[in-house]
Amino acid sequence: MVDRVSVRVPASSANIGPGFDAFSVALEKPHIHLTAEKLEGEMGVVLEARGPFSRQVPLNPVQNAAARAFQSLVLERGLRCGVKIVIEAGIPVAKGLGASGAEAVGAVVAGEKLLGLSLSEEDRIRIAASAEPGFHADNVIASLLGGFNIIDSSREGLIFLNVKPPENIGLVVLVPKFEKKSTEEARKAITQTPTLSEYVQALSRASLISAALALGKVDLLLRLIPFDPFIERVRANAGLYGPGYSWERLLEEKEKLLREFEVALCISGSGPSRLLIYDSRKGLERVEQAVEYLSDRLERMAGGLETVIYTKPSPGGAEITALH
Amino acid sequence: MVDRVSVRVPASSANIGPGFDAFSVALEKPHIHLTAEKLEGEMGVVLEARGPFSRQVPLNPVQNAAARAFQSLVLERGLRCGVKIVIEAGIPVAKGLGASGAEAVGAVVAGEKLLGLSLSEEDRIRIAASAEPGFHADNVIASLLGGFNIIDSSREGLIFLNVKPPENIGLVVLVPKFEKKSTEEARKAITQTPTLSEYVQALSRASLISAALALGKVDLLLRLIPFDPFIERVRANAGLYGPGYSWERLLEEKEKLLREFEVALCISGSGPSRLLIYDSRKGLERVEQAVEYLSDRLERMAGGLETVIYTKPSPGGAEITALH
Repeated sequence: MVDRVSVRVPASSANIGPGFDAFSVALEKPHIHLTAEKLEGEMGVVLEARGPFSRQVPLNPVQNAAARAFQSLVLERGLRCGVKIVIEAGIPVAKGLGASGAEAVGAVVAGEKLLGLSLSEEDRIRIAASAEPGFHADNVIASLLGGFNIIDSSREGLIFLNVKPPENIGLVVLVPKFEKKSTEEARKAITQTPTLSEYVQALSRASLISAALALGKVDLLLRLIPFDPFIERVRANAGLYGPGYSWERLLEEKEKLLREFEVALCISGSGPSRLLIYDSRKGLERVEQAVEYLSDRLERMAGGLETVIYTKPSPGGAEITALH
Repeated sequence: MVDRVSVRVPASSANIGPGFDAFSVALEKPHIHLTAEKLEGEMGVVLEARGPFSRQVPLNPVQNAAARAFQSLVLERGLRCGVKIVIEAGIPVAKGLGASGAEAVGAVVAGEKLLGLSLSEEDRIRIAASAEPGFHADNVIASLLGGFNIIDSSREGLIFLNVKPPENIGLVVLVPKFEKKSTEEARKAITQTPTLSEYVQALSRASLISAALALGKVDLLLRLIPFDPFIERVRANAGLYGPGYSWERLLEEKEKLLREFEVALCISGSGPSRLLIYDSRKGLERVEQAVEYLSDRLERMAGGLETVIYTKPSPGGAEITALH
């Protein structure tokens, strides 16, 4: 009998430019640890949060993604089980890095072991995504499986492809102090509909990025990722990426970063974090210059910089680190 | 000195389901032969057409894609040269199989040799596409390079990726008797704009198809290609695929063909030809049943069937077959 399970779950970045609601990548850093422990003779979820971002983790089970995912699992299987979940909160919260998705994945993976279940990959994804706003599975799939992921959730359930990340991709996450309202608010900001030309641009570029990923063509990735034709434009102009930002200013940064430093810039998830993507075979010097330039801009237009994380795609996803 | 050049150019199929204006594939059959011969002391283009579809090839140089492409080439290089172009018209005309794109490619490839030029791949594509309505490069790229192609023509010129076709893909083209007006009319039928949900569906599915192509995952391709969320729906409902067709009826066919015969159905280019895609390792029997079923439907709803072509992706593109 297992009484306590610890899981390490990577953060993730969704969208990756033109891949709105379709692309996600697991990050080697940051991550959370989640420990789930059986509470004998009790029901429900008791929550505790530790670590750098613990103050922003909701401890009310109704609002907490880990608790919601665990409850879904228990309910679906018709089980009765009390649990204490301790979250070592290493992922900045509400910054577009999939913190809630990682918590939900951690709870499902730990819960499965704790309850002696044997879930399919699809079950894990579905139950974890049920704790996410709008049942979005993009962050959840990346945190669970690692790597790059391409997702279609619109027909006959979920179709997805997990793609091994090219080894020479380096990533930097810049987390602005600027606080967005919520992912749902960011969705509501999309009040326009795309034009036919934006539709074609999005599907062309997302397709090229997908094939380039699969074939390890990092140069091509970098040329296309910055240029989302619709969502980032609308959200930038709605002020979601910082009070001083417009699409024009964001595009100016994207073009400069690509041209001068060979670095691709996109918004991580619904923001406000920025994701920089580069070819790690080409050395760090230009990337550091890019970070310096962008830090200065974020200082002036997005309320300053909270932290910078040098990372890369995580080939692996959630991992059980201890069983008792 | 070269006086006469013959080129073999494959037909092509554009869009391939969700990849509107972004995907194209070269077909091993049908193809055209184009021969270009210098006319000493003369200017302009003299045209001749032979072969099964010769009656539909316009012999007025202003309307003929080969003549227009040749004239673009001559004009751009500031040359003076008269030429006789003979087209062996093996590709059905105005049926969505890239006949005009193949002619334009043939003229550029033959013209390059005849005039002793050395063009870049980009030049060849650009000049051939200049003879196509709206400068669309999708058919042209497939006929020139072969294979599958993913194209973004919306930023900083043209970005494209040529992907080697998985070896186990089989194709069938069904050409209905029903005549569409023109590719430009088919574009004008798109009077709506896509919803956000159609936008996400198109980019998700096109992305999955692209990665699946690159990774040789034919099963995944077949599940996604039939389900274009926007363009095919709008055009079907505008009557462009046959007087008796609506999107509902087309979707009914797509679902039945996939479910019962493991065959993916999409419209070739702007139609009216139908493209069937299947896994050739699984034998021909179910494909023949699919063709029978679809032939019967086309008989009733699209004015009957002109021809059925069993083919596959052509790994190679335009090829010089004779030089004198």
